[in-house]
Amino acid sequence: MERLPGFRDFYPEPLPHKDVWSADARQYIFGKWRDAARRYGFREYDGPPLEPLELFTTKSGDEIVGQLYNFTDKGERAVALRPEMTPTLARMIAAHERAYKKPIKWFAVPQLFRYERQQKGRLREHFQLNADIFGETDVAADAELIALLIDTLRSFGLTAEDFVIRLSSRNAWQEFYERGARNTERRMESEYQFFQVIDKLERTPKEESEQKLVALGFSLTEVNRFIEAGEPTPELKAILGNLLARGLGDFVKVDYHVIRGLAYYTGPVFEAFDRKGEFRAIAGGGRYDNLVKLISGGKVNLPALGFGMGDVVLLELLKARGLLPKFDAAVDVFVLIEDETSRLRSLKLIQDLRAAGLAVEYSLTPAKPDKQFKRAQELKAAHTAKVENDAKVRIRNLNTRAELVSSASDAVKHFV
Amino acid sequence: MERLPGFRDFYPEPLPHKDVWSADARQYIFGKWRDAARRYGFREYDGPPLEPLELFTTKSGDEIVGQLYNFTDKGERAVALRPEMTPTLARMIAAHERAYKKPIKWFAVPQLFRYERQQKGRLREHFQLNADIFGETDVAADAELIALLIDTLRSFGLTAEDFVIRLSSRNAWQEFYERGARNTERRMESEYQFFQVIDKLERTPKEESEQKLVALGFSLTEVNRFIEAGEPTPELKAILGNLLARGLGDFVKVDYHVIRGLAYYTGPVFEAFDRKGEFRAIAGGGRYDNLVKLISGGKVNLPALGFGMGDVVLLELLKARGLLPKFDAAVDVFVLIEDETSRLRSLKLIQDLRAAGLAVEYSLTPAKPDKQFKRAQELKAAHTAKVENDAKVRIRNLNTRAELVSSASDAVKHFV
Repeated sequence: MERLPGFRDFYPEPLPHKDVWSADARQYIFGKWRDAARRYGFREYDGPPLEPLELFTTKSGDEIVGQLYNFTDKGERAVALRPEMTPTLARMIAAHERAYKKPIKWFAVPQLFRYERQQKGRLREHFQLNADIFGETDVAADAELIALLIDTLRSFGLTAEDFVIRLSSRNAWQEFYERGARNTERRMESEYQFFQVIDKLERTPKEESEQKLVALGFSLTEVNRFIEAGEPTPELKAILGNLLARGLGDFVKVDYHVIRGLAYYTGPVFEAFDRKGEFRAIAGGGRYDNLVKLISGGKVNLPALGFGMGDVVLLELLKARGLLPKFDAAVDVFVLIEDETSRLRSLKLIQDLRAAGLAVEYSLTPAKPDKQFKRAQELKAAHTAKVENDAKVRIRNLNTRAELVSSASDAVKHFV
Repeated sequence: MERLPGFRDFYPEPLPHKDVWSADARQYIFGKWRDAARRYGFREYDGPPLEPLELFTTKSGDEIVGQLYNFTDKGERAVALRPEMTPTLARMIAAHERAYKKPIKWFAVPQLFRYERQQKGRLREHFQLNADIFGETDVAADAELIALLIDTLRSFGLTAEDFVIRLSSRNAWQEFYERGARNTERRMESEYQFFQVIDKLERTPKEESEQKLVALGFSLTEVNRFIEAGEPTPELKAILGNLLARGLGDFVKVDYHVIRGLAYYTGPVFEAFDRKGEFRAIAGGGRYDNLVKLISGGKVNLPALGFGMGDVVLLELLKARGLLPKFDAAVDVFVLIEDETSRLRSLKLIQDLRAAGLAVEYSLTPAKPDKQFKRAQELKAAHTAKVENDAKVRIRNLNTRAELVSSASDAVKHFV
């Protein structure tokens, strides 16, 4: 029986096959994500992986709606596996924002889902770090969020030579659009179409972009001129100054190619890319000051901003740069039971060592001494311990080869 | 817009409402689960939350099939959100067991789903610690698994006065059934029905159990006599002896009321209960030596055993026993910016402190000094730090009220 296409099995390392994923690498990534968020004072939240379909169709932009993993449940409800976290978060914030001091700084590590019929071999789920700030209009919040993004990536060993944050402004593009819009009657609709063209500019043939822009009343030349000028808005200047003060200036540049596909962004937007341009975006985000109002049906109005960072591109990048550590069983002590008469006393030793926080392995059933020792080595155990005939415990450090003999009651002390 | 019935929102503490759940308590539980598994040498794995429906209908017993959260996806596949982890695990093991040395000791922390039309207010998802051992027939593996279960519960501060493992044997019940079975023609079918009656004995009116047992050719009297005798099988005796040697004898007792509902169990089975009998089972598991063969279509045959422990009953028990710690933002340093001319230098200090691993908060925008200090106290920050006019840093320990002044470059050293 096979797993569904586009889903992943996560196995402990060493991996048994190239088509499976590393549970150890996943936990390593999650751990770094959580630690960076903690250092920045972000608190963890989570919501349901399944939500009413309506939550996502309300205003997530046409692109995401076509990719929804949606169905009708046994109670005849239209539901969807979440394709992104922001609508759930906006719903949760709208429900209980009054209980929290502003700014609210929250993060989550959700699994997200999408279903596209066309694309074979493409993943239908991934994990994301989502970090968001609510209740602060000042760009100091944008800088704080981008600093978190930078330091999250740095915590994996990535440097300013490996990645850059391309900083842009939905506002700047909106003004550009409004200055140039010829057809005022269908402005809102074509504004979104215009943003979509900009979003895809770098991966679309020139002729196609030109054609689409002309249809909207623009030329590729004026668009390219605006991008190349790269004149930071006052907002972007303030963000850059803030990041510079933190010593993070090398990690960020203004780049108006970035505009973000989703409809709900309103202010500064940004994406993280590897410097060599080998991979898709590592992360992306920006301001979405109107979404909470929209999701809450006008009841709550809170400025907001956030980013998402997926596990798949990040893992590819870390692999390519040789930044993934070796994962193993991390056994602290392998208890050798060479004489079966000592098994019960050995079980007590194992219990005591584990109670002291040590990771302990042993042979569940009688096995030859050399086989047990070989297993200890395979597991890269740091030590072996053996209950001797006189009930003393012989401890051996497998790295230094140093040995010592301890009373059973004192054995734990030699490890902690 | 509301979340779906039976699903949970997890918020940071302090909780804003009684209908939401604590993300902090959830992470606390997950952390303890992972740490106990690590000490016992179990490695983490995970599979897809969505699987082919067939994986669960193959042989999970009638009970679970009626509770499946299943639907047809856009590719016309019959799929289900996983109601339990064991079939996924058996599938993963069957696919790649040859790459791993035996015994295989694995754990996961999956979210599981069920859909029952009838029961209102009941949760449709929960999280579980799942721990399993593959490739070992000896009851030493059963004892190792039960020891892990005991020590996982103990790591929350629960003692032998709070919970007990009720140890039983599917084998013993099978023999009992075979000795007494009157109708040999439909033995397999009615054996499962018999197990279901035993499983529900304690929560079913006597008359109803009696009636059902008689229909199967048994009497309630003989069933109760077998339970009350509580004579441990040689297997159970060996498990008890093993746990006694570890000093865990107080945590376990033989109790033939336990039989486990699922069809696939084959040997020793067990459940963890609170001693006061206030809650449903905290955890349950046992041997299922035939499931891997079944799931793999006969290709792989590996003895197996495992348990599952849900987050909901555990959380209720920890709350009732006052064993949940206070969760707060755990801010190490709140940086006070009382003079806006020091903001940029303060940002550098914040960056340095965070780079050293400290959790740091500050006011994103100008705020009155007393308001900033109040916020530091609300966040239960351990220290405040302030960049002074001469670029020195004044550090204050909010618990001891001790103060010191440091150069900016040395400030980090006073915390780590």
